[in-house]
Amino acid sequence: MKKVQSAHREKMSEKKEADRGLFLILTGDGKGKSSSAFGSIIRALGWGHSVGVVQYVKGNWKTGERQFFQKYPDLVTWHTMGQGFTWDTQDREKDIEAARAAWGVSAKMLASGEYDLVVLDELNIVLRYDYLPVDEVLAGLMNRHPRTSVMVTGRDAKEELRVEADLITEMTPIKHPFESGIKAKRGIDY
Amino acid sequence: MKKVQSAHREKMSEKKEADRGLFLILTGDGKGKSSSAFGSIIRALGWGHSVGVVQYVKGNWKTGERQFFQKYPDLVTWHTMGQGFTWDTQDREKDIEAARAAWGVSAKMLASGEYDLVVLDELNIVLRYDYLPVDEVLAGLMNRHPRTSVMVTGRDAKEELRVEADLITEMTPIKHPFESGIKAKRGIDY
Repeated sequence: MKKVQSAHREKMSEKKEADRGLFLILTGDGKGKSSSAFGSIIRALGWGHSVGVVQYVKGNWKTGERQFFQKYPDLVTWHTMGQGFTWDTQDREKDIEAARAAWGVSAKMLASGEYDLVVLDELNIVLRYDYLPVDEVLAGLMNRHPRTSVMVTGRDAKEELRVEADLITEMTPIKHPFESGIKAKRGIDY
Repeated sequence: MKKVQSAHREKMSEKKEADRGLFLILTGDGKGKSSSAFGSIIRALGWGHSVGVVQYVKGNWKTGERQFFQKYPDLVTWHTMGQGFTWDTQDREKDIEAARAAWGVSAKMLASGEYDLVVLDELNIVLRYDYLPVDEVLAGLMNRHPRTSVMVTGRDAKEELRVEADLITEMTPIKHPFESGIKAKRGIDY
């Protein structure tokens, strides 16, 4: 009887946990924020979970992760919104417009209940430049569907987000090859 | 002419970089070490690179990443060596034997020249318990094929390895859901 009860308790607690999505932040100046998010996507997919991604910044760059998931378009709903940003040409109004569009897609994904995991890659960067009102973004994150875990990456995560997150990891660079003159490496850095 | 020279220089420098594999360490107590490595695998695969993985510790656990890559067995050469370890039963001699076997596979992979990226997941843990002589492991890492990047994960990376690494990132836990009583979550933590 005790065994049955304990098994039941375990099952209930498992169910409760399985039902509640987490809010995770990966920040800091070190490498591994986005790649950690992409690794989590693989983990989620391994368990048959459904995953959505919005990439805020890396729109124009050819990245390994995007090429990989393009080969398997059924695996992940993937939105690359970064092409709207003017990181080189510096047009703030255009950037705010691009951020709005990306956030629109993200907020819809978060609320839909269609995803076990939503990755908002480099959202922190957009918030850091005040392209989006942090209160509105935070409300969207907190009012996500209860089933959905959300992972936000990018350096300089805002305090408003940190306070509400279930998990924060800071990637701290101890040693970085760029310092010793080694350039960004395909398949490792992007 | 100047343009041709500069293009040539760029091409040569690109070639040089492309030829030299890096030695990367992901360590620290925070989340995201292994998932960052799995994200890097996705990046590498996106560029058409060849990848090998040896998982030292998580042999008996059912993980999302393993289930994912089992579905696509052509993508990655995957060795799960952790099943030999006696983390629960504590049999040091058996563990050393298991570590030897895992390192044998790893050293072969590193030397073979068949891989652009080799991930030795949780190797640091095995070294921390002195299951393997650190000098021998370091020699195997440094004498890898020049084309091969190697990524070593696990907390408490040894100083001997840190000194030689091209890149070290420490994952620092700022907030962790286990602290507030939330259990490890499928698709996020494993």
